Amino acid sequence: MRVIIGLDIGGTKILGALYDVDGNVISKIKKKTKSNEGLEMVMKQVDKVIDGLIKAEGIELLGIGIGVPGLVNEQGEVLFSPNIPFRDFKLEKRISESYRVPVVVGNDVNVAMFGEYKHLNDVKLNDVLGIFVGTGVGGAIILGGNLFVGQGSAAEFGHMVVNVDGAYCGCGAQGCLEAYASKTAMPKYILKQLGKGRMSVLKDYLEEDGAVMKSSSLKKALDVKDELALDVVERTAKYLGVAIGNLVNLFHPQMIILGGGVIESLEVELVDRAIREARLHAMPGLMDSVELKMSTLGDEAGVYGAYRLAREKLKI
Amino acid sequence: MRVIIGLDIGGTKILGALYDVDGNVISKIKKKTKSNEGLEMVMKQVDKVIDGLIKAEGIELLGIGIGVPGLVNEQGEVLFSPNIPFRDFKLEKRISESYRVPVVVGNDVNVAMFGEYKHLNDVKLNDVLGIFVGTGVGGAIILGGNLFVGQGSAAEFGHMVVNVDGAYCGCGAQGCLEAYASKTAMPKYILKQLGKGRMSVLKDYLEEDGAVMKSSSLKKALDVKDELALDVVERTAKYLGVAIGNLVNLFHPQMIILGGGVIESLEVELVDRAIREARLHAMPGLMDSVELKMSTLGDEAGVYGAYRLAREKLKI
Repeated sequence: MRVIIGLDIGGTKILGALYDVDGNVISKIKKKTKSNEGLEMVMKQVDKVIDGLIKAEGIELLGIGIGVPGLVNEQGEVLFSPNIPFRDFKLEKRISESYRVPVVVGNDVNVAMFGEYKHLNDVKLNDVLGIFVGTGVGGAIILGGNLFVGQGSAAEFGHMVVNVDGAYCGCGAQGCLEAYASKTAMPKYILKQLGKGRMSVLKDYLEEDGAVMKSSSLKKALDVKDELALDVVERTAKYLGVAIGNLVNLFHPQMIILGGGVIESLEVELVDRAIREARLHAMPGLMDSVELKMSTLGDEAGVYGAYRLAREKLKI
Repeated sequence: MRVIIGLDIGGTKILGALYDVDGNVISKIKKKTKSNEGLEMVMKQVDKVIDGLIKAEGIELLGIGIGVPGLVNEQGEVLFSPNIPFRDFKLEKRISESYRVPVVVGNDVNVAMFGEYKHLNDVKLNDVLGIFVGTGVGGAIILGGNLFVGQGSAAEFGHMVVNVDGAYCGCGAQGCLEAYASKTAMPKYILKQLGKGRMSVLKDYLEEDGAVMKSSSLKKALDVKDELALDVVERTAKYLGVAIGNLVNLFHPQMIILGGGVIESLEVELVDRAIREARLHAMPGLMDSVELKMSTLGDEAGVYGAYRLAREKLKI
């Protein structure tokens, strides 16, 4: 049986899945990334996942697709990763030489949203964007059915400035979308509001969650109609909506896919508000021509997208 | 001789140029658009320009390219134009039927910046953006060497929100780039500052210019080191820089071409400041990989771009 591997290398865990050429999952493996033990250890873990997957009998490995957080160039080098000790690391070359098959490496969010695109759509629409709202904000640009990365780092939707004199972002710049609509932006805003004397059940949740707000905590607070929680959701929806409006004006795409933990867990509360805001910013008439879809793959998106990207490279 | 016509239909005048297939201008004609006399009169003027150009002896007309302000769809219908009485008007079909040659119609700024791209670059770089700052702000997205318009209206760079709770834009939305960096944004800001009691030579110029600031007026004020004029330029540069940073993060293009009256006349004062601001917003390292170029064609860009677009359609 001819098979392809999809690999999702994250800051804490590596997910791998073995697919047949029709997209059926044959097997899956998960291992710790062990980022803090250095590059060699990380690569040992990656090899363990791949070796585990190809142990299956009677298979012919055709290729490997990989998603990794950070900046990846067109040659499959990881220039920089925020969580993994990759620095100008020729990941594609290394894996390709070790396993003697074609390999493709992409940014994790690019790859995951490409997976969502392929899963939702499968070649009917050509020009589609994906927005991913989680700990950070990322995205994917699919043009003519292919993932567009420019010189390698396109679709950094989280670092689109929406409020130039506003909040500071983790990237050092001011006013980025990610500084308003992400799991890292939320705790900062909540702490500020609590500091002003506002009351909220989020105070306790935040002490547990730390610097990254759990969507489940926010959801619990919304269930008891906590005012600050509603305020946080409205704020997130506002900036997400501005971003959607901007992307419609810039790309006039056929579809936008909304994904990531924040959107998946808060869909009901978040998405209609965001669309209302987007309508205020998109040029007249344009929003009606753009389909909005929710992502559906959850944690599977990364490995599935990596598999689909490898399939594209292999022209299967 | 085989020839192609490039047509630039503006709110006040129609420019037409007859080119040979090597890009040499054979002849040019300019006529008033007469927008306020209705659609039929405008089309009569368009025909006059084309008829005048094809009067030349011994020519074989291969095709016509047209740029027009407003929303144009992929079928060459002008859905809406702010200055010309086109409304769901099948311009491409009408011209194609009248002159029995292939016709291509695009948004004027898209077309002009495509002309700048072709003139500056001629197929060496594939992924290039153009930003045009004039009375309004527009742009062009060139991907794989072709003009990308999405479903028809992509590259509306002027309506990218950079300051969500900020200035109102002519489009009705809040915080658009065009509300900060354009010849229409400048007078609004200047009037507000004069209202606060600031002194400036711009007061007199503004009385002459009205709602659209002339770049020459601003330049004269800068020459006498007028403080408000410098302030206006810094403000324009700041928002233009934010837009450049955003576009780098979104597209990671090989080149960005800066064009339009504001940029052409204020290049020295404006562009370096804008690039400094862009560096604050682009992701680390990305700005260094993007070449920035000034447009060079001035008023020629529209007809030249229309000619080049027709040449693309004809595959010449």
